[in-house]
Amino acid sequence: MSGNETKLWGGRFGEDVDSLMEKFNSSINIDKRLCHADIKGSKAYAKAIQKSGLISADELEAITSGLNEVDEEWKKESFVIQRNDEDIHTANERRLTELIGQQIAGKLHTGRSRNDQVATDVRLWLKDEIKSIKVILARLIQCICDRAHREIDVIMPGYTHMQRAQPIRWSHWLMSYAVAFLRDMDMLNDMYKRVDVLPLGSGALAGNPFNIDREYLAKELDFAHISFNSLDATGNRDFVSDMLFWSSQFSCHLSRLSEDLIMYSTKEFGFVELADKYSTGSSLMPQKKNPDCLELIRGKCGTIIGKAMGFLTTLKGLPSTYNKDLQEDKVPLFETCDMVVAMIEIAMGVINTLTINPLNMEAALTKDMLATDLAYYLVRKNVPFRIAHNLSGQVVKKAEEKKCKLNEVSLEELRKISEKFDADVVEVWNFEHSVEQYKASGGTSKSSVLAQIESVSQCLNH
Amino acid sequence: MSGNETKLWGGRFGEDVDSLMEKFNSSINIDKRLCHADIKGSKAYAKAIQKSGLISADELEAITSGLNEVDEEWKKESFVIQRNDEDIHTANERRLTELIGQQIAGKLHTGRSRNDQVATDVRLWLKDEIKSIKVILARLIQCICDRAHREIDVIMPGYTHMQRAQPIRWSHWLMSYAVAFLRDMDMLNDMYKRVDVLPLGSGALAGNPFNIDREYLAKELDFAHISFNSLDATGNRDFVSDMLFWSSQFSCHLSRLSEDLIMYSTKEFGFVELADKYSTGSSLMPQKKNPDCLELIRGKCGTIIGKAMGFLTTLKGLPSTYNKDLQEDKVPLFETCDMVVAMIEIAMGVINTLTINPLNMEAALTKDMLATDLAYYLVRKNVPFRIAHNLSGQVVKKAEEKKCKLNEVSLEELRKISEKFDADVVEVWNFEHSVEQYKASGGTSKSSVLAQIESVSQCLNH
Amino acid sequence: MSGNETKLWGGRFGEDVDSLMEKFNSSINIDKRLCHADIKGSKAYAKAIQKSGLISADELEAITSGLNEVDEEWKKESFVIQRNDEDIHTANERRLTELIGQQIAGKLHTGRSRNDQVATDVRLWLKDEIKSIKVILARLIQCICDRAHREIDVIMPGYTHMQRAQPIRWSHWLMSYAVAFLRDMDMLNDMYKRVDVLPLGSGALAGNPFNIDREYLAKELDFAHISFNSLDATGNRDFVSDMLFWSSQFSCHLSRLSEDLIMYSTKEFGFVELADKYSTGSSLMPQKKNPDCLELIRGKCGTIIGKAMGFLTTLKGLPSTYNKDLQEDKVPLFETCDMVVAMIEIAMGVINTLTINPLNMEAALTKDMLATDLAYYLVRKNVPFRIAHNLSGQVVKKAEEKKCKLNEVSLEELRKISEKFDADVVEVWNFEHSVEQYKASGGTSKSSVLAQIESVSQCLNH
Amino acid sequence: MSGNETKLWGGRFGEDVDSLMEKFNSSINIDKRLCHADIKGSKAYAKAIQKSGLISADELEAITSGLNEVDEEWKKESFVIQRNDEDIHTANERRLTELIGQQIAGKLHTGRSRNDQVATDVRLWLKDEIKSIKVILARLIQCICDRAHREIDVIMPGYTHMQRAQPIRWSHWLMSYAVAFLRDMDMLNDMYKRVDVLPLGSGALAGNPFNIDREYLAKELDFAHISFNSLDATGNRDFVSDMLFWSSQFSCHLSRLSEDLIMYSTKEFGFVELADKYSTGSSLMPQKKNPDCLELIRGKCGTIIGKAMGFLTTLKGLPSTYNKDLQEDKVPLFETCDMVVAMIEIAMGVINTLTINPLNMEAALTKDMLATDLAYYLVRKNVPFRIAHNLSGQVVKKAEEKKCKLNEVSLEELRKISEKFDADVVEVWNFEHSVEQYKASGGTSKSSVLAQIESVSQCLNH
Repeated sequence: MSGNETKLWGGRFGEDVDSLMEKFNSSINIDKRLCHADIKGSKAYAKAIQKSGLISADELEAITSGLNEVDEEWKKESFVIQRNDEDIHTANERRLTELIGQQIAGKLHTGRSRNDQVATDVRLWLKDEIKSIKVILARLIQCICDRAHREIDVIMPGYTHMQRAQPIRWSHWLMSYAVAFLRDMDMLNDMYKRVDVLPLGSGALAGNPFNIDREYLAKELDFAHISFNSLDATGNRDFVSDMLFWSSQFSCHLSRLSEDLIMYSTKEFGFVELADKYSTGSSLMPQKKNPDCLELIRGKCGTIIGKAMGFLTTLKGLPSTYNKDLQEDKVPLFETCDMVVAMIEIAMGVINTLTINPLNMEAALTKDMLATDLAYYLVRKNVPFRIAHNLSGQVVKKAEEKKCKLNEVSLEELRKISEKFDADVVEVWNFEHSVEQYKASGGTSKSSVLAQIESVSQCLNH
Repeated sequence: MSGNETKLWGGRFGEDVDSLMEKFNSSINIDKRLCHADIKGSKAYAKAIQKSGLISADELEAITSGLNEVDEEWKKESFVIQRNDEDIHTANERRLTELIGQQIAGKLHTGRSRNDQVATDVRLWLKDEIKSIKVILARLIQCICDRAHREIDVIMPGYTHMQRAQPIRWSHWLMSYAVAFLRDMDMLNDMYKRVDVLPLGSGALAGNPFNIDREYLAKELDFAHISFNSLDATGNRDFVSDMLFWSSQFSCHLSRLSEDLIMYSTKEFGFVELADKYSTGSSLMPQKKNPDCLELIRGKCGTIIGKAMGFLTTLKGLPSTYNKDLQEDKVPLFETCDMVVAMIEIAMGVINTLTINPLNMEAALTKDMLATDLAYYLVRKNVPFRIAHNLSGQVVKKAEEKKCKLNEVSLEELRKISEKFDADVVEVWNFEHSVEQYKASGGTSKSSVLAQIESVSQCLNH
Repeated sequence: MSGNETKLWGGRFGEDVDSLMEKFNSSINIDKRLCHADIKGSKAYAKAIQKSGLISADELEAITSGLNEVDEEWKKESFVIQRNDEDIHTANERRLTELIGQQIAGKLHTGRSRNDQVATDVRLWLKDEIKSIKVILARLIQCICDRAHREIDVIMPGYTHMQRAQPIRWSHWLMSYAVAFLRDMDMLNDMYKRVDVLPLGSGALAGNPFNIDREYLAKELDFAHISFNSLDATGNRDFVSDMLFWSSQFSCHLSRLSEDLIMYSTKEFGFVELADKYSTGSSLMPQKKNPDCLELIRGKCGTIIGKAMGFLTTLKGLPSTYNKDLQEDKVPLFETCDMVVAMIEIAMGVINTLTINPLNMEAALTKDMLATDLAYYLVRKNVPFRIAHNLSGQVVKKAEEKKCKLNEVSLEELRKISEKFDADVVEVWNFEHSVEQYKASGGTSKSSVLAQIESVSQCLNH
Repeated sequence: MSGNETKLWGGRFGEDVDSLMEKFNSSINIDKRLCHADIKGSKAYAKAIQKSGLISADELEAITSGLNEVDEEWKKESFVIQRNDEDIHTANERRLTELIGQQIAGKLHTGRSRNDQVATDVRLWLKDEIKSIKVILARLIQCICDRAHREIDVIMPGYTHMQRAQPIRWSHWLMSYAVAFLRDMDMLNDMYKRVDVLPLGSGALAGNPFNIDREYLAKELDFAHISFNSLDATGNRDFVSDMLFWSSQFSCHLSRLSEDLIMYSTKEFGFVELADKYSTGSSLMPQKKNPDCLELIRGKCGTIIGKAMGFLTTLKGLPSTYNKDLQEDKVPLFETCDMVVAMIEIAMGVINTLTINPLNMEAALTKDMLATDLAYYLVRKNVPFRIAHNLSGQVVKKAEEKKCKLNEVSLEELRKISEKFDADVVEVWNFEHSVEQYKASGGTSKSSVLAQIESVSQCLNH
């Protein structure tokens, strides 16, 4: 039987829904993921209507144990979805009705609408999801800090515009991601506050006429606040687009990390090598070892940005309150969260298992990367920086003309460029010495990088 | 067994892939949809390598009948995916090997790579999909033409800026969508040409060293052209972003249609009523009848735009040739095509079954909508249009001040505004007469609308 | 003269830049908007390097008064941009050099790079911009609260799915936007914290080697925190994409408001009329009065979403640290902020000047909108809601069959549907009574709406 | 004077527009770029209404020479925009009226609306723009072909997944972009057909009531077709989103090219060096030479994708016919076309002036890149490819274990892996020989690359 009579809203309709339409409209295959949140919300709601006198203590008891039974069925995967279960709310209520009869089950929805119900369910689900993400995100940050601590003595070229710029510590590069992820964590915490608002008790749009105690409901369901306005509460999906945007921005950080590592793992750079267990090969070229996992992270970042953009586009076209277009919120939300979790785990695995090649890093540290320090040498001899920069530039040009290294330009020639150059210029040509100069907070000196590790770890533990 | 040894590329690897990584990397659950295309491509490729002398006629026979058997298994849903079947190409070759042994099956991939194979498979699949979409899109256009023909005498308000503008025929409104969809059809045909290019024979990136006859391959697989350059052929996914963009633009037309119909089916407009079988109700409000299907079309349009945007974003970040990020092409492509098909079918069902309410349309035709015709009345009496427009505007203002209808401004008052007004002004106040004036091609007169229907139908049948 | 010698980096280059390239690369026409922020940052930096002993007190004095003079020139619009001023940093330093000579001016940039300089400038600018936006956003919210307070007695239809749903207060509708905007304010405050972080002292990528006191710099420039890591500090533009996303989401709220008002101002709804001074007409149709300003808000929302997504797409494709692609941050940021300010001002003007038509609102309150209350009537007589919903649905169906209003179904017929119906059912048919029932927090009763106004106003003043 | 009386639509309005609103609504600063197209359209329209008998031959003469004078003023930059010139249509008509008086000028707009006028203007402008783009795009393709022809003997590593894959010709890499751009050219031609449709004669929405000969208009304005339906014609902006999408896809190709070249110009790769005149330096690091122009191309690609998606988002939210939101079409269209032109010119300059370093390319050709050929060696000795691939993989593994090159694994050891290996295996280790094997169409052999150059050049000249 597929008639409207078992739908939650069939009373006024004369004709059954077209079967194509039924399929187009149905969301159960997606929103069944909310099964536990839906039951949790219903149990709290039953308590609230009992408190309002709409049902008796016995009826509450019956509803609660019925819902527990339904919950068990989901857990045991014995719940059987029926054709007319157009969404999780319908499915759960249908099953509850079968278990405890309509005289009692039929009271549960009093004063409630699927509009406030689904908004509550999604928020409940997302609150849990964010908590999970925070846990693994913290592990990712910690694993970066640990590796940065361990390998603090390794020096590598730092790049801007993809061109060799100045020497930095490998750990300084690692920590640049730890601090970005810490910022993501901070943003996630801010965002969580806006998810942590209860819409239940807003009905379809106008609110609740049975003196439901919404603060009590919030307490039962562990929400920090209740929504201010019922129209806004039921039509608002900002918390979904927030999460999608957060995921976009966060995955941009992961994509950037991947881009760096893909480059560092080319034969030309040769700074890192991914573990075999995070690499794949080619069906044609026997020698290939490809960083597929990093490429997939990079690719999935685009996919996630698209999901954020697509949902914003949907929201943008809407008038206020609930419109069915909002049903398009769940697929991008669920898929994005799943991707985020998988991407974090893969990134963590990659970082934990890759090996670095300090010899290649060292070989890539060419003397021209000390041209800035050469200018600073002159600054310390009281040459204004702008002039010192130009003089150092002339040394670079000279070295290029002579096809020699920067430190191979003779003192004599240096002095033709500036008389400030002296024998002590040789002290410039030391990479360890160079990175150690950058002692200001946030720089590449060992003390500064250790301080970063310390600060980030402290933030994590708060 | 989950070791790399059954992968297509395991030879050089010492360590098995991490199980999380294996899951992250695997695409079989998605690309199994290409099973038939993959087998079709392999059968043609087997012929080509036989032609090149790489396999014997007997071997070709064995491969072909083996592949046919695999194909049958997919059709009968008896194909069992194994854990190591990381993609459809691996799965099909693994199964073929089981059926005919590695000595023969192991020759099939000679000179081929999954890079040119997957590009070929997706193109084969998409060519078929576009053909299917064209068929139902033509049906949608035809059903609009039919309804436009049937209800050509119904006059309704035309709107700009959502404000009543001028009277138009209901059929003129209907046909505005038929012509937009015809443009979509035209664009789909143009796009098809760019899908209809064979990449097979491009190997991983460098081409094919066994004198494969690519023109022969193209003929076998019914491609109009072969790709020019092997690097481009394997890294190019423009045809995917083309299809995603086409779907975005097309679904914008469907969204616009939905927006119009949602508005026309409000109680305030009351121009159309959706059939019960394309409507749903409310779990809270018994009287509600909601145009969910149209809202879902509107919402899915946003989702599709997001998929297009997301994939473009992924492409934008890539260097040339094949990178694993490209694996993110299939989910958006498949899901978008499925949505497009469903949306067309639902739109067609809605249009075929909705009822119109000509009385409400007529009631909404207020006399102020003839203010333009009033200006034209003066133009015909040789008043320059810009002045006539201003005079007609003054009549509108007068009517608003008097809170009367435009045709209730007395001739005396009209003549105070302009002496050109005369008794024959009453002829202006006729809606049928108004729409019939617009006889220029593309206008609202009956002849013009019939000509549109005729033209569109003719284009469809070419 | 257009040679590289006046560029900040010309020393090593042998060939002048191509003139097309110079134009392509130049950002001065855009980033001159940062002129004051750039000078402010430089003045603080000069103090910091004096504190580090890199310049003398006299030199500091000369730099400071020179920079003040440059600042004055910008204010008086007498600053003349030269062809070689490729960006605002170059322009300001070039002018300073002209004013005080290179021996002193040439020291200002010591240890600094345009990479940390521009990141600092943009943050300084954005901090001010956010403060300005907060001020006018608060005014917008307050003007909504004021109007909601004033017109609290007006009742109108509430809609879901664009279909009449339940009666609500006009003020309840108004307040649904006040609370959305308050949420935007809250998010803006959270976001501000992440803008309020000083990158200066990070150099090009590696930090600062002159013991710059970055905490002192932060204090001078009124930043709450300093950045953790120099690589991240110079390459990070999350605060830009944050602002663009915030603007996207906020403008979605404005777009939704516009969509509602455009609909409410159709002749068919007739609930509101925009003031003439926020309306425009048609060059062809004399009677037209179009809500152009609201349509432009709606349209600009799409434009802003595009800017957010475009910049995310750019970020997504990058490796770490500074890459020139980041120069694409300023156009979207500046244009978006300007649009946001203009949109708020227009929205405020529209809301302040529109007139409402309570008679039309009342006329649109049809009795079927009380079907939910009719079900609740039965609920209060102990009929389980699910059954009551169905019975009320049958009454709706009956009324449709008889083409009568819901309250015109006779008691006799009602009792055929359910014996629980009694003479007191007439009390249901009162709209004022209906909205007053919804007393739970966030609902449509007068007390609830007043409480919302009170709460929102309080939040604003904290 | 800023009153509505000089607006084209002021007649019915009682109150002047708010000054903020006026600024918000005005588009003249943007759409003045359409000045010539607007005048061209008006001149043709004047002819058409003369043909319809609405104006006399003398009046046509007056209008035409007046419009020519206005056109001259734009050309000489002596046209003075007035405050009330809200758009280019108003400005031009206002000026015409000043020049020839309202009795004649006031007739020009008869039967026309700004809705069909602006759609016509934008199409006229875009047709010219596309023609210009085609010319420089052809030059870009030709310059790639020329360079490819010149340097056909240079061999470099080909990459997939950014890992060394197989040797290819440098020209083969170059040509991979020529063929992508040729595809873009093909798509531009298809798109042009859909721009080449005349909307003029559609009025505001309903068509034209004065028997305008639209085919005549099309001929006058050099349009291939006239639009089918007036509602669609005035509300349709598909041709704008088409152009924005085309630009997105095309700039993705430029971004990919830039990404490759940025990588190839790192010190680590060292394959190419950009000319100084397409490079810039660092304000801090004297040695830096940065590929800013390529990074800007890459960044602008993101910006363009954002413009495409932003405009689609705007379109998606609209009902049919003209809505003011459509005014948001011109900024993205103009800015995108300008960017596309600049990007092509810069790309062409870069390609024409970069130098390649064949020695570095050769040094990067490591023997493991011949592992595929080693497998093919076995294939030619009748080993099934799948087995040959595995055996070659074992050789790779052996070489890694021994830390030797692939060709340094001794024959003895090779024969332990497979007895098929023989002394003639040394012939595999030749890169020139390797690329010459790939003779199938689209491959890396010299004949194949020359054939590509030939084909592309031929296509260009058709």
